[in-house]
Amino acid sequence: MSNPRDVECMSYALRLAKQGIYSTRPNPNVGCVITNTKGEIMGEGYHHRAGGPHAEIFALQQAGDKAKGGIAYISLEPCCHYGKTGPCVEALIDAGIQKVFIAMRDPNPLVSGKGVELLKQHNIEVEENILSQQANCLNRGFIKRMSHGLPWVTAKVASSSDGRTALSNGASKWITSELARFDVQKIRARHDAIMTGIGTVLADDPSLNMRLTKAELGCEEEPIQPIRIVLDPELEMSTNAKMLSLTGKTIIYTAKDSNINAFANLPSCEVIQIDGQNNKFDLHEIFKHLAKLDINSVLVESGASLLGQLINAQLIDELIHYIAPTLMGNQSRGMFDVDEIANMNECISLEYEDIRQIGKDIRITSLINY
Amino acid sequence: MSNPRDVECMSYALRLAKQGIYSTRPNPNVGCVITNTKGEIMGEGYHHRAGGPHAEIFALQQAGDKAKGGIAYISLEPCCHYGKTGPCVEALIDAGIQKVFIAMRDPNPLVSGKGVELLKQHNIEVEENILSQQANCLNRGFIKRMSHGLPWVTAKVASSSDGRTALSNGASKWITSELARFDVQKIRARHDAIMTGIGTVLADDPSLNMRLTKAELGCEEEPIQPIRIVLDPELEMSTNAKMLSLTGKTIIYTAKDSNINAFANLPSCEVIQIDGQNNKFDLHEIFKHLAKLDINSVLVESGASLLGQLINAQLIDELIHYIAPTLMGNQSRGMFDVDEIANMNECISLEYEDIRQIGKDIRITSLINY
Repeated sequence: MSNPRDVECMSYALRLAKQGIYSTRPNPNVGCVITNTKGEIMGEGYHHRAGGPHAEIFALQQAGDKAKGGIAYISLEPCCHYGKTGPCVEALIDAGIQKVFIAMRDPNPLVSGKGVELLKQHNIEVEENILSQQANCLNRGFIKRMSHGLPWVTAKVASSSDGRTALSNGASKWITSELARFDVQKIRARHDAIMTGIGTVLADDPSLNMRLTKAELGCEEEPIQPIRIVLDPELEMSTNAKMLSLTGKTIIYTAKDSNINAFANLPSCEVIQIDGQNNKFDLHEIFKHLAKLDINSVLVESGASLLGQLINAQLIDELIHYIAPTLMGNQSRGMFDVDEIANMNECISLEYEDIRQIGKDIRITSLINY
Repeated sequence: MSNPRDVECMSYALRLAKQGIYSTRPNPNVGCVITNTKGEIMGEGYHHRAGGPHAEIFALQQAGDKAKGGIAYISLEPCCHYGKTGPCVEALIDAGIQKVFIAMRDPNPLVSGKGVELLKQHNIEVEENILSQQANCLNRGFIKRMSHGLPWVTAKVASSSDGRTALSNGASKWITSELARFDVQKIRARHDAIMTGIGTVLADDPSLNMRLTKAELGCEEEPIQPIRIVLDPELEMSTNAKMLSLTGKTIIYTAKDSNINAFANLPSCEVIQIDGQNNKFDLHEIFKHLAKLDINSVLVESGASLLGQLINAQLIDELIHYIAPTLMGNQSRGMFDVDEIANMNECISLEYEDIRQIGKDIRITSLINY
């Protein structure tokens, strides 16, 4: 049974794990704390970067001999296979750890439970599901990719208080305040990819990049630039689009097979053809493909048309909605071109996760319950 | 100079004043605390009901002889004229009060400052503007009527998270939860009048009444039923409308002079003709007329058309917006039919006053800055 100190230590392991949210992708965020039997912390660590040591290794190294007979608190089941690094289960066994708390099992169905099994075979006591909900939240993208073969998809949208994203003439700069736009940069930084539609590219020629330094993000590791994704069925994108000149990779999904060669000379741009018809392609196929590229999480920043299609296809998991203290009126443009709804009980249902003020705007984070 | 105890006592006087918010209309809410020179409370009171004793009288009665040489904290400048009751200034002088703190002066320009003057003439020390902002908030309706000859107007609107109030087929029951609708009842209770347009009456035949008991409102006095107001230029209202059969008064404003006699037999219904043209009448004239009827505050619960007209006419002061955790899409109906806006800097600007969760919904209260 876990006692309050165990929960404290796991909570600390989760906080450590969070330090890697801008840099571990495509790996999950993991934190580890090692204590002696009195509950004193002997070692701690978190996973910094794919290819680098896992959290357990940092913590065991710091604990040294003091790990012997100690307790490990790990936010995710330790691995038991040789990947880019040796298996952590082996390291825990070798260090003489006597008890392991894990917040949740590995979400990969092929290995889930195997780490726990191996520890138990070596007479190490294992206790599971300490703060499992928090651990789940921390790695929603990784978990969804492992369990469903799809990335976690967040839509970001900024509107007036009456739910309008642009005036009738298209003007929208700026609905929200500078602080909200700074906040969007932080949200971009914790996503593997940023997606938009060709309509937004043609209208705004956006950068779609993450412009914060590690100091601004408050992390130790250099953040990874998210991959830019443009959905462009007819391949209308210009090779001169601003985003193609910026650091980081751009992937264009198209339904057309012609004209792809025009992008062949752009080393940081990849054009991928996905079958489609009537100017629309199978959105599910695109997201499955993104998961195969090891993309855990996608932030969609687009117009009402693509957002509506993605909601209709039940592909958006989470909505981050900035509400500015303004009214724009019914002649201005709306948020989501979803299919017409005929009955009140068919409205798309949200679950508010977080509500806060960001500067002069309000930010509401919700999950979409399909 | 005020010390922390003075601020405490005035804060308490303001809390006392609030107990009258459902019953003092058309009078303002006032609270009074009397202390001795050690700061011990000797008497306290609030204004309950127009025609009944003022806050100062309750507090002086409770303090009795102990008021002599004491300090009075009053949330509004005491009156010096004979109205329905004797002047409070005289009572304070007679009781031997030596110092009076007032949160704000009487907003009626005809008497403002006269109470302070008279107290000073009797060698009573007066200190003003203790918690004046809070005192202003408490009586926004009364203050606006006294200073501008217009009531304070609040618009209540319930929408989905994407700013939609009804499906394309008109269905809207219910966007928000039962708790939010209960909250609306409390908001109705603190307004002198509830206004809607004939469109809403014809579509929904609403009750537009306040259905809470004093126990549910948590007040000592019976709440006053708000007056119902229908804006009905063409006098399309049926004499069988549900609201006309309910307790409380209904005022119908029309631009037509015919057909008014049909309502003559309904004792709780008054039809008032206001000049107009093209099916629209001068909304300012209506609100000026309401102020002349001693209505301090109006809650507008109507469709997008009337709300849009009132915002265009700069008649709405405050917006209470319930946001339900749903999406209804761009084919659903919007919130405000305001005039088309051509530039981002012409958007209607709000100032968030309060943001909170009410059941599963969010309630945002804002002021409109024209």
